[in-house]
Amino acid sequence: MGKRLVIALGGNALGNTPEEQLELVKGTAATIVDLVEEGYDVVVGHGNGPQVGMINLAMEFSANNGGNTPAMPFPECGAMTQGYIGYHLQQAIGRELNKRQIKKPVVSVVTQVVVDVNDPAFQKPTKPIGSFYSKEEADRIVAEKGYTFVEDAGRGYRRVVPSPKPCEIVELDVVEKLVEDGNIVITVGGGGIPVYKDDDGYTGVAAVIDKDRASSKLALDLKADMLVILTAVDRVCINFNKPDQKELASISMEEALKYIDEGHFAPGSMLPKVEACLDYVKNTKDGKALITSLKRAKDALAGKTGTIIHS
Amino acid sequence: MGKRLVIALGGNALGNTPEEQLELVKGTAATIVDLVEEGYDVVVGHGNGPQVGMINLAMEFSANNGGNTPAMPFPECGAMTQGYIGYHLQQAIGRELNKRQIKKPVVSVVTQVVVDVNDPAFQKPTKPIGSFYSKEEADRIVAEKGYTFVEDAGRGYRRVVPSPKPCEIVELDVVEKLVEDGNIVITVGGGGIPVYKDDDGYTGVAAVIDKDRASSKLALDLKADMLVILTAVDRVCINFNKPDQKELASISMEEALKYIDEGHFAPGSMLPKVEACLDYVKNTKDGKALITSLKRAKDALAGKTGTIIHS
Repeated sequence: MGKRLVIALGGNALGNTPEEQLELVKGTAATIVDLVEEGYDVVVGHGNGPQVGMINLAMEFSANNGGNTPAMPFPECGAMTQGYIGYHLQQAIGRELNKRQIKKPVVSVVTQVVVDVNDPAFQKPTKPIGSFYSKEEADRIVAEKGYTFVEDAGRGYRRVVPSPKPCEIVELDVVEKLVEDGNIVITVGGGGIPVYKDDDGYTGVAAVIDKDRASSKLALDLKADMLVILTAVDRVCINFNKPDQKELASISMEEALKYIDEGHFAPGSMLPKVEACLDYVKNTKDGKALITSLKRAKDALAGKTGTIIHS
Repeated sequence: MGKRLVIALGGNALGNTPEEQLELVKGTAATIVDLVEEGYDVVVGHGNGPQVGMINLAMEFSANNGGNTPAMPFPECGAMTQGYIGYHLQQAIGRELNKRQIKKPVVSVVTQVVVDVNDPAFQKPTKPIGSFYSKEEADRIVAEKGYTFVEDAGRGYRRVVPSPKPCEIVELDVVEKLVEDGNIVITVGGGGIPVYKDDDGYTGVAAVIDKDRASSKLALDLKADMLVILTAVDRVCINFNKPDQKELASISMEEALKYIDEGHFAPGSMLPKVEACLDYVKNTKDGKALITSLKRAKDALAGKTGTIIHS
């Protein structure tokens, strides 16, 4: 068995339209197969922000404007993105494996992730989804469906959903077995389909689970050797975009926490990635986390670039 | 190991809206878990006609009417239905298993199915999808995208796609392993995402693979003990809806072929189901196929109803 990597693919690994995505996943697949070729067992988590937004918007637009199709709840839209993105990824990875004459199956698993009904995030929804509405329309929808709306920078009112922490990956055992059996597994797409758990089973809930956090949880549960968060930059920086910007090659948890305190990492951007890494590192014995770019993942694993976060 | 069943779920097992589907899958799950409780290893194939129609229509409507979302190719819409339906099914089946205190994992696998570029179906597309267009609009789209349109009973012009035969289930090995490991596996949703195969890999193609045919192929490939096609009626009939209507309890391949010749089974309805059964039965040694209703599947497996097709 090779070393087990859980990689979290960011927005630049996928696309805003199906055509763009089919093109972008070629590069994503090349990176993934690079790592497979290096002998790693690769488990793939991915985001779905633009894709779930697109599907949710289209379903909402059609339902509200005479398209004669029903509105689609948010968890179901997330499930759709797992099918859509999983299909593109498995096809592209399969093609890349074939090109390099590597025999390895690729499988996308529809994955639910449990969130806690008492998570404070539910008291303060932050993630905007769907269309912009006028105040009157928004008020009507609030009365009708109980959604939360916020005013968005003068552009109108937009529904917001909470971003709770991932507590449990429902399909974990299956994913683990598939990894052990040598499959490249695509899972926790979009952070997973968010569900509540009660005594009887699971129920979907309108929320967005951060994909880096879900991948961090997955890496922990799978006892991965490394969590790899792939994004647009080769290395994490302090004083980002300032004259004294400095790339970080390797930082300890303490250093990371200090930099967070000093406000070096932007909320909604690098901060949640570093936090996802810390969650993983602090709960493992020797686990390391790596943040690097999709393009230079192979180099980063060889120590040539990237930022390692260690205990 | 129990006897292995591949069941094909029809339209009545799912729903036209997400709310309806969440309700209907409860009964579907109860049937599936009935069979699990009887000791069968159950593999689930399902249709997606209304669901892929809904998603395709909504994406098309939004793209064409200022919804500011991109058009979505047909194979991608099919992939979305696998996520959407798989999620509902695995959640409902999980809940039903839990209720009966049965420990068994459920997994939905995003599944591609290869079709032959030389399949005569591509010369004669028959499955209508998407919206109705005027002749002028249809002509414009034909010129732009090369789609095929047909006039639909005075209601306008509608795109048609071919319905080719399933040749190969791309994710078969993974599905087989998952079944061997004791999972309830949901696969070939909507007949599978239709793809061409070339030397490098797979590419999506706008087509609809009949879900009964895909399930028949799956049953063959998995060396299932039985193919079970679940539909709206308890038994196949000859002289259906006529005064001398007769329910069939058990028929041989020869009898089935004779009844087909005599025109007893409606094209697009019972005929493709009987044909899918014949495809399976004629290619197995002892394989039997069963056509019955979703509600009475358990009774039918106990020999109390249903129509068995045997060699």
